[in-house]
Amino acid sequence: MASTDQRDSLQNAICLSHHVNARSKARRPSPLKDIIHFMSQEGMISFAGGLPHPSLFPIHRANFVVSNVSSPRALEYNDESVLELSSTAGSPTLANFLQYGNGAGNPQLRQWCLDFTLQIHQPPYKDVEVLLHQGNTNAWSKVVGLLCEEGDHILCESFTYPSAQALWIPLGNFAAPIPMDDQGIHPDALEQMLASWNETHPGVRRPHVLYLVGVGSNPSGTTMREDRKRTIYSICSKYDIIIVEDDPYYFIQYSKYGTDSGTTYELQPNDAFKAFLAPSFLRYDYQGRVIRLESFSKSLAPGLRLGYFVANSSFTERLLRATEVETQDPAGLSQAVVLSILRQWTVDGYLTWLQNLSNQYQMRCDWMISAFAKNFELVPASAFPNLNADGLVAAMKTGSGSIPIFSFVPPIGGMFIWAMFHFSANPRFKELRHDSKIEDPEQSFANELWMRFAENLVLLTPGSYYHPWQGADKVSTQARGVEPETSHFRFSFAMVTRDDIELGVTRMAEVVKSSWNL
Amino acid sequence: MASTDQRDSLQNAICLSHHVNARSKARRPSPLKDIIHFMSQEGMISFAGGLPHPSLFPIHRANFVVSNVSSPRALEYNDESVLELSSTAGSPTLANFLQYGNGAGNPQLRQWCLDFTLQIHQPPYKDVEVLLHQGNTNAWSKVVGLLCEEGDHILCESFTYPSAQALWIPLGNFAAPIPMDDQGIHPDALEQMLASWNETHPGVRRPHVLYLVGVGSNPSGTTMREDRKRTIYSICSKYDIIIVEDDPYYFIQYSKYGTDSGTTYELQPNDAFKAFLAPSFLRYDYQGRVIRLESFSKSLAPGLRLGYFVANSSFTERLLRATEVETQDPAGLSQAVVLSILRQWTVDGYLTWLQNLSNQYQMRCDWMISAFAKNFELVPASAFPNLNADGLVAAMKTGSGSIPIFSFVPPIGGMFIWAMFHFSANPRFKELRHDSKIEDPEQSFANELWMRFAENLVLLTPGSYYHPWQGADKVSTQARGVEPETSHFRFSFAMVTRDDIELGVTRMAEVVKSSWNL
Repeated sequence: MASTDQRDSLQNAICLSHHVNARSKARRPSPLKDIIHFMSQEGMISFAGGLPHPSLFPIHRANFVVSNVSSPRALEYNDESVLELSSTAGSPTLANFLQYGNGAGNPQLRQWCLDFTLQIHQPPYKDVEVLLHQGNTNAWSKVVGLLCEEGDHILCESFTYPSAQALWIPLGNFAAPIPMDDQGIHPDALEQMLASWNETHPGVRRPHVLYLVGVGSNPSGTTMREDRKRTIYSICSKYDIIIVEDDPYYFIQYSKYGTDSGTTYELQPNDAFKAFLAPSFLRYDYQGRVIRLESFSKSLAPGLRLGYFVANSSFTERLLRATEVETQDPAGLSQAVVLSILRQWTVDGYLTWLQNLSNQYQMRCDWMISAFAKNFELVPASAFPNLNADGLVAAMKTGSGSIPIFSFVPPIGGMFIWAMFHFSANPRFKELRHDSKIEDPEQSFANELWMRFAENLVLLTPGSYYHPWQGADKVSTQARGVEPETSHFRFSFAMVTRDDIELGVTRMAEVVKSSWNL
Repeated sequence: MASTDQRDSLQNAICLSHHVNARSKARRPSPLKDIIHFMSQEGMISFAGGLPHPSLFPIHRANFVVSNVSSPRALEYNDESVLELSSTAGSPTLANFLQYGNGAGNPQLRQWCLDFTLQIHQPPYKDVEVLLHQGNTNAWSKVVGLLCEEGDHILCESFTYPSAQALWIPLGNFAAPIPMDDQGIHPDALEQMLASWNETHPGVRRPHVLYLVGVGSNPSGTTMREDRKRTIYSICSKYDIIIVEDDPYYFIQYSKYGTDSGTTYELQPNDAFKAFLAPSFLRYDYQGRVIRLESFSKSLAPGLRLGYFVANSSFTERLLRATEVETQDPAGLSQAVVLSILRQWTVDGYLTWLQNLSNQYQMRCDWMISAFAKNFELVPASAFPNLNADGLVAAMKTGSGSIPIFSFVPPIGGMFIWAMFHFSANPRFKELRHDSKIEDPEQSFANELWMRFAENLVLLTPGSYYHPWQGADKVSTQARGVEPETSHFRFSFAMVTRDDIELGVTRMAEVVKSSWNL
């Protein structure tokens, strides 16, 4: 961790206020804030606040039975401890969390999150701040409200999170998708899009916001490591882009399938875990152009609806103005229980918890890939040089050789395997491709295949849900300019048992055999 | 309560979709929703969801020690019971509340809120629905996102809640304030503004949204009763206005000061309490044009950040689309504890709790008015026919008669006394009024007076915080066209002890004596 002295010697963020949109610039602090410092004056009798009386709150005490992290087997529920929250004792009390907050969130929890951020991500500028939010859905909504004007194009991954898009499409924004490889968006493609923007999009403002899920991306499962992040950061700096890093899966990072066969998913020392984690963009953010969306949804529980922004102080100030009028503080019980858990666990215990979590999801990922291996031939993509695929190919043997069915990059983070299905050898697909009435044979066949999977009781998420919205004229496979004769499906391994994974993959393989006539 | 048969015979809301703005119309349901019904199919193995595994949530059980409502003295904390939430038992389990929700909120809690609404407010149309939200700040933000276009004028009270305005001003909206009397906005003034709109505002869209706090209004403390609400509703129906009823103080309604001297604040039967409550606009809403913002902030606790919309089903459908991309569900622990409390208490117990609350705030209100009576002469406003004031006047005796200092309407709901100070007899004000360099003598003197109060350790909220924003050219007292030689201050009696109320009012009276030279 950078010492206080080291941080004191850092520069503040550069001025990035030209990225803030007109509506956000027009927000004013509440006039009520002007009198808050009078309220705390010695002997003052205040008739000014509008708060209800805390003696009239019906919740007096709360206990939470939570996992202990002292043992590496905490996830098995046999090691628990009790957290007590009371209205009459402790600091801060339960009554504080049941009262109105100030918009920014409980100061102790913010401080915990800031200290943790400085320790883990080491942002190399000084005025980095933390502001609590209601989960990354809400956080992204506030960031679009901060930065985007109607008509803006938003740089994003070539497959992007649908809820993020569902927000921006009605606001009149468009996606500017960047082609990806096994580490996420490709720097050459990003550079090329930005360098040629004015020719390719005459009269349209060049994108100034990049939205991405840098670790265990949803849906593509990719994780971007050190060099790639450094390169992307430097392009964003050159073209003055704000990087919005939506990173809910950050602490679910693990080793690649097969790199440690017979793995026992044991804990390492926390320092080794920290060193193993792909860095955040914050690590390279000497200018303060990264807005990090951190969430407790995957590390603790989604129903808490709690996370935090990490950004330069002028962005957090504007985000706080939006918070005051759009949401106010996150729910007090969520803040209270998270602060209590983190204090009880300490940073070290939290890292142990996160390692345990990562091991659990790695194990589930390994179950799924092993099930692929049982039902398909799993070979490196290089075995099919004509395929334009990364990672591994799941193929089916025939009399005359092997037919590639789908390819995927084994994830090193998150909850998803993103499979590119290769349709060229499928007889039904060939039929559709030669039917002049079919406008988008790839999508038509993907729909049929999805329905056959579902009829055989295995449900995948269609890749079409993640197509970036570039306007009504860029919807078909051809118009989007993507790899022909392919379509994607997303496999989530987070919520299923080992038996169900094996049964589900077997069902899928049966559908494939039948559909491909194998 | 209307029986199911009676409700079945009601008509649905009329079509009001022309009020929905372009952005809200453009929102599409998440494509992920299309596959939800496949997920629940018998035997289906789903690799489709993106949820984390609930066995990996660190909170296993929770207990909440809450007030009992069996006794009328529940507020005194000596009657408590324990609510248990577990991940492994009960319906719904704690784990359900820690997982992602569907945006609309827990179905059992929504049903409770709907049943309660039907029983209390009896909306006379059929497709009335309930949707949970994160408190009325968030609810109002979503309603503006649903209804308002840039440039729209919003009908509001002549003194309006500053956070509501702080949202709409940066969005390019303006206030169209309606003069008020002791029951809130005046129907004649509303009718006149709407009838003459096209002449007074050529080329500007006539307002189609009315925002108001109908009970215990913040800041004016007024409560609008049956006849006034019926009349306002009928004007809104004539001019096709959507009524947004922000009603957090609804269940804090009580008798007027002095109507029951020596009151013991005892409970009545709940039926008498229900009959006593001023109705909601919902009671008259045969067309479905009311959006009611209901909150648990004042009835249970603000830190829960939980409330609910009541509106016609086409509005709640659009509000749900916004919820999916802007916030998702309210926090699960808040939903869990509120559902548990309401189930434990039952409707009858909740009404008992609310009566207790109302009595508590009535008592605090009575303390404050009694303190006024000790330090001033309290007389009916009719004693000062030249004053253009409602309610009571707090006057100071002089050798030559009585000088009116401030006037107010004793509240019958909420937490605030809204005092109109009369400056005409104040020597310093006269000086300022004759100083040609002073642009707005009322505001200048109000600022000075506020600071003298604060220097003497009593803090009031300046009335200027509640001036509706009509544009930069309508800021001064004169330009706003309000009563000259007056200015307002808000007194909150919710958070202070009886002793502090008496001491604070005495300090205020001392400042008045000195400032008025009495």
